Amino acid sequence: MTPINLAAAFGRFDATWTPHVAAELNGQMVKLAKLEGPFVWHDHAEEDELFLVVRGRLRIELRDRPAVELGPGEMVVVPRGVEHRPVALPTADVVLFEPAGTAHTGTVESERTVRDLPRL
Amino acid sequence: MTPINLAAAFGRFDATWTPHVAAELNGQMVKLAKLEGPFVWHDHAEEDELFLVVRGRLRIELRDRPAVELGPGEMVVVPRGVEHRPVALPTADVVLFEPAGTAHTGTVESERTVRDLPRL
Repeated sequence: MTPINLAAAFGRFDATWTPHVAAELNGQMVKLAKLEGPFVWHDHAEEDELFLVVRGRLRIELRDRPAVELGPGEMVVVPRGVEHRPVALPTADVVLFEPAGTAHTGTVESERTVRDLPRL
Repeated sequence: MTPINLAAAFGRFDATWTPHVAAELNGQMVKLAKLEGPFVWHDHAEEDELFLVVRGRLRIELRDRPAVELGPGEMVVVPRGVEHRPVALPTADVVLFEPAGTAHTGTVESERTVRDLPRL
């Protein structure tokens, strides 16, 4: 039962678009991700995904409705099946809360897809 | 898909020890709670519980090991079955991530037990 200081944990890695597992509970994971610029369009068929911005600014673009913009201390849940594209403006540190098995690019295979997530 | 600003959401209620539901995803809930002083000792037989402090200071006392103290931007997971007592020093605004069905006083029936959680 070790406390996690978010600022310190984000300071322990540099790689962007590479979620790091900070905690696991109830089959869910808390992941920390550093984002820079646009990501790939994708969705998660079976998983809702929570984004909580800790630093920087994040726009989440959506196909069928207006984009959502988040600053520090702001969060949103992207429901399962909703195609989205995160775009950091220009960088953001983000906490993700989602099922342990969620692939960060959904069903989209990209050169950015990371399979075995590092643990903090 | 409405963004939630944590500071604004905490500003919308005053009741302490009354978790308010801010979001629901994957059978889990994000709850916001204002804590003041000590709570009751309890555990959750089947649920792990994440505490993330947004404002103030929180000590989580544990029966069989040293207490954990959290400040703003710090979080910890209390595993299922671990008896704990949150104590705000003297107040804290806290985000909880846990299964939707989690009772905040666990199996302990207390005058502080709140059954139907308000939604933000």
